Amino acid sequence: MKNFAGAPGTRTGLTLRVAQCLFAASSIALMATTKTFFNFTAFCYLIASMGLVIIWSFGLAIIDAYALATKKVLHSPISVSLFVVGDWVTSTLSLAAAASSGGITVLYFGDLGGCSLREECTKYQLAVAFAFLSWLVNEISFLIMFWLLASG
Amino acid sequence: MKNFAGAPGTRTGLTLRVAQCLFAASSIALMATTKTFFNFTAFCYLIASMGLVIIWSFGLAIIDAYALATKKVLHSPISVSLFVVGDWVTSTLSLAAAASSGGITVLYFGDLGGCSLREECTKYQLAVAFAFLSWLVNEISFLIMFWLLASG
Repeated sequence: MKNFAGAPGTRTGLTLRVAQCLFAASSIALMATTKTFFNFTAFCYLIASMGLVIIWSFGLAIIDAYALATKKVLHSPISVSLFVVGDWVTSTLSLAAAASSGGITVLYFGDLGGCSLREECTKYQLAVAFAFLSWLVNEISFLIMFWLLASG
Repeated sequence: MKNFAGAPGTRTGLTLRVAQCLFAASSIALMATTKTFFNFTAFCYLIASMGLVIIWSFGLAIIDAYALATKKVLHSPISVSLFVVGDWVTSTLSLAAAASSGGITVLYFGDLGGCSLREECTKYQLAVAFAFLSWLVNEISFLIMFWLLASG
């Protein structure tokens, strides 16, 4: 397998993983500090989904850092297949979570004529924005891994 | 490029395109026949997104059928790159639309204690279910096209 930017065990790969963790953690931090998130299934799902992204990306960040430190190459078809499946699941779940929470945010702040709780509303919107950013970086990782696997 | 099930110009590829069109059309038909969908941004977005899926998949179904009838091979890197980009855009948009509408459906029928308009509620739920099915088939098409492009 070829070695290119974003592949496992590269600096770009590690940067993508760290970015996924940071965006997902910001999303959880903003959502979990609101007082009413547990009334909405979609917001709870957002927290669960971003939690999964953190666990997955943090694990892969450690593997990437280890591979960088020991100069090992992580391109066996089995490990790349595992990364592809994990990245597909996390990116799909995070897009679904971001979109469903985004739908409710638009419903409350647009369709129903504005949100009454000022600080909470900004937090909801920012949490959704960070979830979308986390999905975007995760999707880039998935596309790179899938390309690596398919190009053999 | 190798020729395998689901590639452009194959029977499986044509079947996937027809399935995408049918699921998206069912979703639009169910959503557009409710009386209140235009009050919800997410439901309008679902209709727009499923409309885009129909246009894209119908166009590709015609190309597939033409390739099957004339026994032409549609595996030039430029055409496959175009299919990959189009499939990625439509599958991402349809998942976002299905998830945002799903979030609102769960909010109304779960979190807020049930939906008062019986027939409308069933239609909303079915429209979301068909949108998810359309996304799933679209995602399969995208993964096949991307594999085809990457494997060269």
